[in-house]
Amino acid sequence: MSMEIVSKQAIPDETKLVLLIFDGLGGLDNEGRGTALEAAQVPNLDSLAGDSVTGFHIPVAPGITPGSGPAHLSLFGYDPLKYRIGRGVLEALGVNFDLREGDVPARVNFCTLDAEGIITDRRAGRISSEEGQRIVNKLSSAIKIEGVETHLVHVKEYRAALILRGKGLGGGIRDTDPQATGKPPLPPTPIEDTPENRKTASVLSDYLTQARKVLADEERANMLNLRGIDLFEPLPTFQELYHLSPAAIALYPMYKGVSRLAGMTVQEHGQETNSDEFEILEKVWNDFDYFFIHIKKTDSYGEDGNFEGRVQVLEEVDALIPRLMNLSPDVVAVTGDHSTPSPMKGHSWHPVPLMIHAEHCRRDIVTAFNETALLAGGLGTIHGTDILPLMLANGGRLGKFGA
Amino acid sequence: MSMEIVSKQAIPDETKLVLLIFDGLGGLDNEGRGTALEAAQVPNLDSLAGDSVTGFHIPVAPGITPGSGPAHLSLFGYDPLKYRIGRGVLEALGVNFDLREGDVPARVNFCTLDAEGIITDRRAGRISSEEGQRIVNKLSSAIKIEGVETHLVHVKEYRAALILRGKGLGGGIRDTDPQATGKPPLPPTPIEDTPENRKTASVLSDYLTQARKVLADEERANMLNLRGIDLFEPLPTFQELYHLSPAAIALYPMYKGVSRLAGMTVQEHGQETNSDEFEILEKVWNDFDYFFIHIKKTDSYGEDGNFEGRVQVLEEVDALIPRLMNLSPDVVAVTGDHSTPSPMKGHSWHPVPLMIHAEHCRRDIVTAFNETALLAGGLGTIHGTDILPLMLANGGRLGKFGA
Repeated sequence: MSMEIVSKQAIPDETKLVLLIFDGLGGLDNEGRGTALEAAQVPNLDSLAGDSVTGFHIPVAPGITPGSGPAHLSLFGYDPLKYRIGRGVLEALGVNFDLREGDVPARVNFCTLDAEGIITDRRAGRISSEEGQRIVNKLSSAIKIEGVETHLVHVKEYRAALILRGKGLGGGIRDTDPQATGKPPLPPTPIEDTPENRKTASVLSDYLTQARKVLADEERANMLNLRGIDLFEPLPTFQELYHLSPAAIALYPMYKGVSRLAGMTVQEHGQETNSDEFEILEKVWNDFDYFFIHIKKTDSYGEDGNFEGRVQVLEEVDALIPRLMNLSPDVVAVTGDHSTPSPMKGHSWHPVPLMIHAEHCRRDIVTAFNETALLAGGLGTIHGTDILPLMLANGGRLGKFGA
Repeated sequence: MSMEIVSKQAIPDETKLVLLIFDGLGGLDNEGRGTALEAAQVPNLDSLAGDSVTGFHIPVAPGITPGSGPAHLSLFGYDPLKYRIGRGVLEALGVNFDLREGDVPARVNFCTLDAEGIITDRRAGRISSEEGQRIVNKLSSAIKIEGVETHLVHVKEYRAALILRGKGLGGGIRDTDPQATGKPPLPPTPIEDTPENRKTASVLSDYLTQARKVLADEERANMLNLRGIDLFEPLPTFQELYHLSPAAIALYPMYKGVSRLAGMTVQEHGQETNSDEFEILEKVWNDFDYFFIHIKKTDSYGEDGNFEGRVQVLEEVDALIPRLMNLSPDVVAVTGDHSTPSPMKGHSWHPVPLMIHAEHCRRDIVTAFNETALLAGGLGTIHGTDILPLMLANGGRLGKFGA
């Protein structure tokens, strides 16, 4: 359903809602052992399934394999086909950069060029984070562009974010990364030819020319490629839409970035483990009423084809579930942003396991949290954007539609 | 989901996809014996169901009984509520007429008028195909209209297609067939009053006046009625949309016509039986990567209320399934275009049995291909237009949406 309708029905309440995301949760059978969820011993998740309404969700559309950005927008109730968020925007948000309306962020990958300007390494020999930071500082102090602020922010190793800020900038600029070595970087060109887009392309071209000179004496990171260059247009936030005060607990920049888009207060307490994330949840429990907790490794291991790793993460987090339930949340939704079956070593289009626990959730007959058991679930297969309205409804936060 | 989004994600691949359609597949219980699928012995379809993800699809919308044209458009991924294809267009495509953008085709039924111009037989005494062809030739050589080409093509017995070709013609003309004897044919009038539509109506009126004179001495086919008169607007093809090279294997003109609309190469090898169709599949297997195979008789027998006939066709085609599977297709979808329950003797709105077989389809617990067993399927009930995206996804032919 449309976010606008849900927003109109939203009413304030004291209830607390939790969205626990196992990134890449859905799987496929692994050589007869079932999916990772089926092979794992997850007594707490199974028990919660027995006290929930269960099913699946489709993040974007049937057959469509989502990237992490659109998949999370869907979980947060934003139609990912309507709200298109570029990689540059996510990267900038992920490092806590205070993006403003009209900014043009891009993802930066440092790379190595040979004497003829041909890319020999698209990741600059995977330079360390220290070296990456040094390169960023070097560029930041040297590059000046008339009338436009440029902010280069280091992310990790060979990665950074570049943000242009100025009047009349457009978006939709093609990647300069040719996605292969043995080729020179591409010039930044607008996808649609408008004066605003041309201005952005011209500023970026100037930036890259200056950067080439500044980095000429570097051995590895002697150039940079830009990707996902687009105008930032803020989303309406959870506060504005639903009277919610949301918090995000994640380990990775990308997920912090996308939750910041929704207006979430990103928790930065030096967390490094899944257990740390649950500790933060306990710590800030009284300060917010919507909590997004993001578990990354289920996806990473799926991408690596590491079935055992997926099983292990599921079991590890399963043991943390009682800490969540001890807080007596009013609504708990557990799902993934998409499937990442280890036999496919990548994201996939398959529907994602889902359960919603709340006093009035209408429990079904399912008593295990896995791809086979959930087929008998009471939710059936819903669209990802319907999860938030169902959480709000179960939390008593949606008023009656019409008289 | 919108076809445009799926098209943007489409990537080329070598995989081969097969859509096997049993026309009118879905059924209802027949006096306690179950549906035709339940009563039939279909071990190969059952076995394939055990190695597939299964469920149902709804071709147009809940409660809507589709005609064959819209139902097939849906199977081919075109929203039948958006792409309206007139009966005239389908009739012309079905006889291999090379329709071009801007043509106005109509379905022609020869009929018998009495001396007062009242219809006494809407099918002209069911004249033979030889006589139908003679009438068509007679009209074609006699009728001339200034500035507009008219093409009259014989279809079968009392049926033909009339195609107007010329500049500035509109569509949306009301049928001249009053759908009952004892009335005169209706004049061709535009549904919406535009100059283009008026021009088409006027040309058709001229044509009909001339035809009445030319056929005045005929005993049975002394007039013609026009139906489904509309402008032909080509659809975007599978080649354009999905990097597919599609082939259609069917016995009846209507299904050849609708598959030609999607850009399919219609196979014409004199096929007359279901077995012939599988032989053609084997023969052209290396030349295409998407194959639509259409089995007609399940629908014809359903329309006749012939339950045994339906059972027999299902069993006959079931025995041919190994020939399909021996080709090692990457993706096989088996379904119908709509339901045609024999107790109803006609098309119906009921969801249509569906299975999709592929390496990564996420098998469910279903091990039989029938209306009761499929209720436990992993697909649930999807929209007909989602079948093609799922086939593409399972064939590795859809890239990731967003970062």
